[in-house]
Amino acid sequence: MQMNKFFHLNTFMEMENSYEESNVIVFGVGFDGTTSNRPGTRFASTSMRREFYGLETYSPLLELDLEDYKVCDIGDLDLSIGNTEKVLNEIYDATKEIVNDNKIPFMIGGEHLVTLPAFKAVYEKFNDIYVIHFDAHTDLRQEYNNNENSHATVIKRIWDIIGDNRIFQFGIRSGTKEEFNFALKEKHTYMEVSNIITFEKIISKLDGKKIYLTIDLDVLDPSIFPGTGTPEPGGVTYKEFENVFRILKNSNVEIVGCDIVELSPDYDNANISTVTACKILRELSLVTSDNVEKGKLI
Amino acid sequence: MQMNKFFHLNTFMEMENSYEESNVIVFGVGFDGTTSNRPGTRFASTSMRREFYGLETYSPLLELDLEDYKVCDIGDLDLSIGNTEKVLNEIYDATKEIVNDNKIPFMIGGEHLVTLPAFKAVYEKFNDIYVIHFDAHTDLRQEYNNNENSHATVIKRIWDIIGDNRIFQFGIRSGTKEEFNFALKEKHTYMEVSNIITFEKIISKLDGKKIYLTIDLDVLDPSIFPGTGTPEPGGVTYKEFENVFRILKNSNVEIVGCDIVELSPDYDNANISTVTACKILRELSLVTSDNVEKGKLI
Amino acid sequence: MQMNKFFHLNTFMEMENSYEESNVIVFGVGFDGTTSNRPGTRFASTSMRREFYGLETYSPLLELDLEDYKVCDIGDLDLSIGNTEKVLNEIYDATKEIVNDNKIPFMIGGEHLVTLPAFKAVYEKFNDIYVIHFDAHTDLRQEYNNNENSHATVIKRIWDIIGDNRIFQFGIRSGTKEEFNFALKEKHTYMEVSNIITFEKIISKLDGKKIYLTIDLDVLDPSIFPGTGTPEPGGVTYKEFENVFRILKNSNVEIVGCDIVELSPDYDNANISTVTACKILRELSLVTSDNVEKGKLI
Amino acid sequence: MQMNKFFHLNTFMEMENSYEESNVIVFGVGFDGTTSNRPGTRFASTSMRREFYGLETYSPLLELDLEDYKVCDIGDLDLSIGNTEKVLNEIYDATKEIVNDNKIPFMIGGEHLVTLPAFKAVYEKFNDIYVIHFDAHTDLRQEYNNNENSHATVIKRIWDIIGDNRIFQFGIRSGTKEEFNFALKEKHTYMEVSNIITFEKIISKLDGKKIYLTIDLDVLDPSIFPGTGTPEPGGVTYKEFENVFRILKNSNVEIVGCDIVELSPDYDNANISTVTACKILRELSLVTSDNVEKGKLI
Amino acid sequence: MQMNKFFHLNTFMEMENSYEESNVIVFGVGFDGTTSNRPGTRFASTSMRREFYGLETYSPLLELDLEDYKVCDIGDLDLSIGNTEKVLNEIYDATKEIVNDNKIPFMIGGEHLVTLPAFKAVYEKFNDIYVIHFDAHTDLRQEYNNNENSHATVIKRIWDIIGDNRIFQFGIRSGTKEEFNFALKEKHTYMEVSNIITFEKIISKLDGKKIYLTIDLDVLDPSIFPGTGTPEPGGVTYKEFENVFRILKNSNVEIVGCDIVELSPDYDNANISTVTACKILRELSLVTSDNVEKGKLI
Amino acid sequence: MQMNKFFHLNTFMEMENSYEESNVIVFGVGFDGTTSNRPGTRFASTSMRREFYGLETYSPLLELDLEDYKVCDIGDLDLSIGNTEKVLNEIYDATKEIVNDNKIPFMIGGEHLVTLPAFKAVYEKFNDIYVIHFDAHTDLRQEYNNNENSHATVIKRIWDIIGDNRIFQFGIRSGTKEEFNFALKEKHTYMEVSNIITFEKIISKLDGKKIYLTIDLDVLDPSIFPGTGTPEPGGVTYKEFENVFRILKNSNVEIVGCDIVELSPDYDNANISTVTACKILRELSLVTSDNVEKGKLI
Repeated sequence: MQMNKFFHLNTFMEMENSYEESNVIVFGVGFDGTTSNRPGTRFASTSMRREFYGLETYSPLLELDLEDYKVCDIGDLDLSIGNTEKVLNEIYDATKEIVNDNKIPFMIGGEHLVTLPAFKAVYEKFNDIYVIHFDAHTDLRQEYNNNENSHATVIKRIWDIIGDNRIFQFGIRSGTKEEFNFALKEKHTYMEVSNIITFEKIISKLDGKKIYLTIDLDVLDPSIFPGTGTPEPGGVTYKEFENVFRILKNSNVEIVGCDIVELSPDYDNANISTVTACKILRELSLVTSDNVEKGKLI
Repeated sequence: MQMNKFFHLNTFMEMENSYEESNVIVFGVGFDGTTSNRPGTRFASTSMRREFYGLETYSPLLELDLEDYKVCDIGDLDLSIGNTEKVLNEIYDATKEIVNDNKIPFMIGGEHLVTLPAFKAVYEKFNDIYVIHFDAHTDLRQEYNNNENSHATVIKRIWDIIGDNRIFQFGIRSGTKEEFNFALKEKHTYMEVSNIITFEKIISKLDGKKIYLTIDLDVLDPSIFPGTGTPEPGGVTYKEFENVFRILKNSNVEIVGCDIVELSPDYDNANISTVTACKILRELSLVTSDNVEKGKLI
Repeated sequence: MQMNKFFHLNTFMEMENSYEESNVIVFGVGFDGTTSNRPGTRFASTSMRREFYGLETYSPLLELDLEDYKVCDIGDLDLSIGNTEKVLNEIYDATKEIVNDNKIPFMIGGEHLVTLPAFKAVYEKFNDIYVIHFDAHTDLRQEYNNNENSHATVIKRIWDIIGDNRIFQFGIRSGTKEEFNFALKEKHTYMEVSNIITFEKIISKLDGKKIYLTIDLDVLDPSIFPGTGTPEPGGVTYKEFENVFRILKNSNVEIVGCDIVELSPDYDNANISTVTACKILRELSLVTSDNVEKGKLI
Repeated sequence: MQMNKFFHLNTFMEMENSYEESNVIVFGVGFDGTTSNRPGTRFASTSMRREFYGLETYSPLLELDLEDYKVCDIGDLDLSIGNTEKVLNEIYDATKEIVNDNKIPFMIGGEHLVTLPAFKAVYEKFNDIYVIHFDAHTDLRQEYNNNENSHATVIKRIWDIIGDNRIFQFGIRSGTKEEFNFALKEKHTYMEVSNIITFEKIISKLDGKKIYLTIDLDVLDPSIFPGTGTPEPGGVTYKEFENVFRILKNSNVEIVGCDIVELSPDYDNANISTVTACKILRELSLVTSDNVEKGKLI
Repeated sequence: MQMNKFFHLNTFMEMENSYEESNVIVFGVGFDGTTSNRPGTRFASTSMRREFYGLETYSPLLELDLEDYKVCDIGDLDLSIGNTEKVLNEIYDATKEIVNDNKIPFMIGGEHLVTLPAFKAVYEKFNDIYVIHFDAHTDLRQEYNNNENSHATVIKRIWDIIGDNRIFQFGIRSGTKEEFNFALKEKHTYMEVSNIITFEKIISKLDGKKIYLTIDLDVLDPSIFPGTGTPEPGGVTYKEFENVFRILKNSNVEIVGCDIVELSPDYDNANISTVTACKILRELSLVTSDNVEKGKLI
Repeated sequence: MQMNKFFHLNTFMEMENSYEESNVIVFGVGFDGTTSNRPGTRFASTSMRREFYGLETYSPLLELDLEDYKVCDIGDLDLSIGNTEKVLNEIYDATKEIVNDNKIPFMIGGEHLVTLPAFKAVYEKFNDIYVIHFDAHTDLRQEYNNNENSHATVIKRIWDIIGDNRIFQFGIRSGTKEEFNFALKEKHTYMEVSNIITFEKIISKLDGKKIYLTIDLDVLDPSIFPGTGTPEPGGVTYKEFENVFRILKNSNVEIVGCDIVELSPDYDNANISTVTACKILRELSLVTSDNVEKGKLI
């Protein structure tokens, strides 16, 4: 009995390769437990799998095709919702296993706090690593609502681990005075509102380096990305953001871990945020896969 | 490497049993090619899989629990969208295989036309079979928009196969004069607006018989089921409809095939139609599984 | 050159008869100038014309078919929006002409104030007339926001014209203490929350009489009719309301004017209110046309 | 300088009395930290204050008028969002003070867990108290997601405090097998799906007793109340629910604390859930105020 | 009896001129039978007629006013929905007649396939014609879902008719590798992502030529145009697109046929896509009418 | 008894200072009585108060923090809805008192007509005053729907008061031919589509002058601001608009009155318009407060 000749389970289109043969492992993490404004990012990966079918597998921007690469959508992580500490451990364990299998984890949040354990697992393998961070918000609070582990503190926690001169933030346009002061002083982090020319310079300085890429999708303007918990006017357009993919493709940095977070599909008008998240997923899986093929990784 | 200890694919909760060990096989058929009013039923099964998590596995109405039965969600059928004839064959082939494996097919549409090939596959195995049909619309046209195979003709096509005295229609409140005349004359079909006492009588008359159950969800009132292509005011409430499950559970009819069709999730306010479709799926899988356990089937 | 063989303008389906040959004249009045809560009834008739196509022309409830009657959708009235007094005159003039042509005006509001001038035009022709009023609200204020002509005073203004023992209100469940006192005392009006048995009695007492029928659609429960300015929980279901059509069909009252008001389509989830308004329009045009055919009118 | 002659802050209409002169104190508690399905109840009281203006102050059902009573809307409680334990203490402290001032707390959630500390404060004053609980869900789990304090355990926690024969549950139609077994056995709680005749009997048995009334608004059917986290088809209609107000008004029970919870306005189509919550707030404040006036309380 | 002094049918504002006296004939074609992603373009023209009233008749960009030109909205084409071949013939016949009457057809889709028969009718009259095509998608597949006539093949079918060097595509950002290869090789078509300077050059090269202009509205970015079947991030803004109108006005090309397609109003948040489609309709009718007045056409 | 230690009323975050100690007074005016297209601006201030919590109090653009200034949200103005003349007087009286107390009125509409009485009150105090007007529409009609006081005439009425060379309009892209002619001729007003360089020049020319700033939020593009009555494609992006705040901060003009109008929250997808209005409110209160601190005012 081989029912699979007729049926398919709901995975990202052209990401149905086996785990073993794949270099890039895509998975969903539906956690939004510390969200302080509009919640719902827990539903992101499910909504994205439906919308992904509206795209083509070919990217004219990158001139690459998903059909030519081995990407595996391994589904959504089982989570102990309601217990933040336990959830963080579950993310850490799963990412650790992917990394240990010499594969690149590509996580779909969930809220931004999910980046912390995934980053940690990647960091423990490579150590000499840089963080590229796209976001509207600084996420540099020391604590938030009496909580050290929060969507609003996640980059500060990563800084606790890797320290100065390692974190590069782009698109930031909201935060407390204290957060901006922290970022701008003593190279704790490098922070930019949104300047693609600077991005290109930074990436060229990181030539040959390993990077962890974390994208809080609210870096995009609410006009193209309304479906997020804390929309912040004044963000980048999708067209501006496309440069990121092109620059990464032409660069010599090695993406060793990646995530896109903070899509909240129940606030997504006509699914335009979801389809935008899908296109970013496609472009970044292509860039990452292409990097691997070029023998850059591992 | 066993990644499954961490991850899950997106299936109906507690319907993750293997095909081989299961008696009831749930699958989605995302076809809406002949829809004449608002389309979108192609997205029904995907949307339902997300909403299903909001329910419990236990039914207090039936005092049965999904955890105690073997139901398998086998995913969505691969379809040649755009070619109606080919799609009908694909549904037929897949259902045929399920039926030949001595399992009960439980299909989630899609538009109502998908019932035709699924019914045909079931009919060819059992022959002596009756059809229970819930719907707001007669679906008894001879042709619609020059098309003999359409959501508006599907019950007429089934009548072509099994003939008089075999089809029982409930909840009907819309159709042409010709359709009503056809149904009401010479027992071509038995038709009722919505009378649960009559339903109980009919079911008791069918004692020991095999039935194919097809539910066009627009039989429900638009107040509880707005998310459908052609909402028709004056339908049954969910509470009235619950009697169907109880009566079936207590009956001696054998459900040998089943479908629920015409959920159009993009028109579904706050997902109330989708969660209602999910609850109907739960209750009916329980009733059908329970019937099998009682040794009634096969 | 006869382009009409190819094209159609946007009218209610099967109401494309000429004005001259028609007995019932349907027209839209997009006025909502005195609305105090959520506005937007100005868009009702336009939205209804699109939704009407989802219905059949045949009513199984009444066993009547629009194809067998002459109804004319004459379009929407030109209005001097912003000048309430002028608008009221424009409605009066147009209705007057329809009445003078021995035809029955069937108006689609707009807010409830539009009933006043339409009623007046009908009243001036027939004088001995009764008002049947369905609504959630009393509409019996003497003035509202310093305004004697308002959606909240319209039935009081009609009472000013025809006086005691002539107005019968059904479905009322909201108003001030003063309004309820006025209605209940000295037969100023007859008021009921919603009791279909009483409706049948009242209609049978009005045997042979002429009536003006005004339906504020918020008489329906917000579950089936969310798309209105001031939804009021606890209303009638559509199924309960269907009795009104059946009773009117079997009665000997003469409907000499009719309106349905207060659909606000921009608040209408999945268009279920709009399709409900359409079904009421179909049933009432059938009842009214049928009454005319029976020779009751003129 | 008296600017108040021109301006008003956003409070519930006709609930602008001073705290000191009022018997019933209405306040919002925007907490939804343990919500497991769709979140957003944190926004309930804010949304309700806007919608309340669409209602009248007079209730024709109860023949009572808000203008004749002293109710005070004291605003929303300041909360340490993100720290569940601290939030529970904050609710407890605020309710305690209201109770100590010999006033009746009327809380608007928030998720259902907020009932626990409010109930506790009321219980500590009166001890001999009964709980009337309307809900679709049992809320009787021992723990949920490793958490003893959760929206899914709240009634179990209350039972921990007051024990057997004190809790009366109405409208329940979802839960695990274990929860139903617990409720139905040894009079741990009294549980009913929804039977207003039984409600009347229970209330008459509680003659002269003090009750705490907690209403999870998802007891209502999703057709009238889509705007909630976990809609469950098969609920009560608003008209059925109205009997509760009438029975309470005519009874001799003393309401010494009250809450309505689980409105999630971002999932509320056309605000019909919000306006329904408002009407329930009006009717219950009237009943409770009327009880106080009759000298029943304090 | 002249009821028209009071009433109007629902046409585009200031496009109520008679067919005979008009140069530009606007009509709707509500067909979306081959749509593979989100359907609903069948409702476009109806929705646009309502929104058009929000605009002025005067264009400050073009310094032209609809009041100064003769444009006729002739309504919507009658279609045999469900039978694609027949529908294509119906579009062809209607367009043919308009063209034969020496008028310019301005079609409002519907899905993009409707362009094929309209183009064919125009092509048969003029032969020496060029196609200007705005779109996010190439539409250059040889077949799609086993179908040669599809929204995804329409430009390939037009190329079958007019061959190389005649088709100019702008805004393209999605397609298969094969489609991009076809377009870019041997001047089969000219393809650009979106560069208004290039557009100006192309138009100036076409000086004195006749052009058919087809605009798939998804060429616009989803931020301003969410209401379409297959939104593709990275499109042009409305302000960028305005240059098209200005360049066309100042050019010497002759627009002999025109269409705007793929508005799907049920996915249109707050109607911003619909009002954008309306503004494009206004600007293009003005440009086309102005061209005719200048004696350029016929 | 000090309940305020627990509770807060619903005001703009960090604008809870006392009227007496504050320089800038924020208030809502929920009037939309002359709106000709989509209504609902009456709900703007209520919706904004909820959304404001999603923002930070610190502006990285201006490097200013609300915590460092004294702004008072005094609530919403009591209005005689339905009586336009009376409403205008009420706005005038309230603004007059604020102005007389040497404070700066910051009004949140409501439709644009509310600007007229507020401006008048400010004008009467200062006389030598200039008007900066951002809008998509000219608002320069002499009358509209037979009405001299309308959202479409408001700037013309202001011109009646202050005359030529005093009004500077930015972002205008819609109006009648007559309105554009009026504006462009004899310096009646200065009108620009949207050119931030010009804005900077104008502001520098007004060095040392007092200005009244009125922002019709539909000046923004519908992609970022769908939630308004008459969306007009082709507007400014939020990023372009940010320059206004920076230029004003660095300028020597004195803002003596300010308003933002025409947010219609019921048409606001995912609240992105509302959060944008909130950010503009924050930036402008900061600029205005900062100007006062610098000793520029009074």
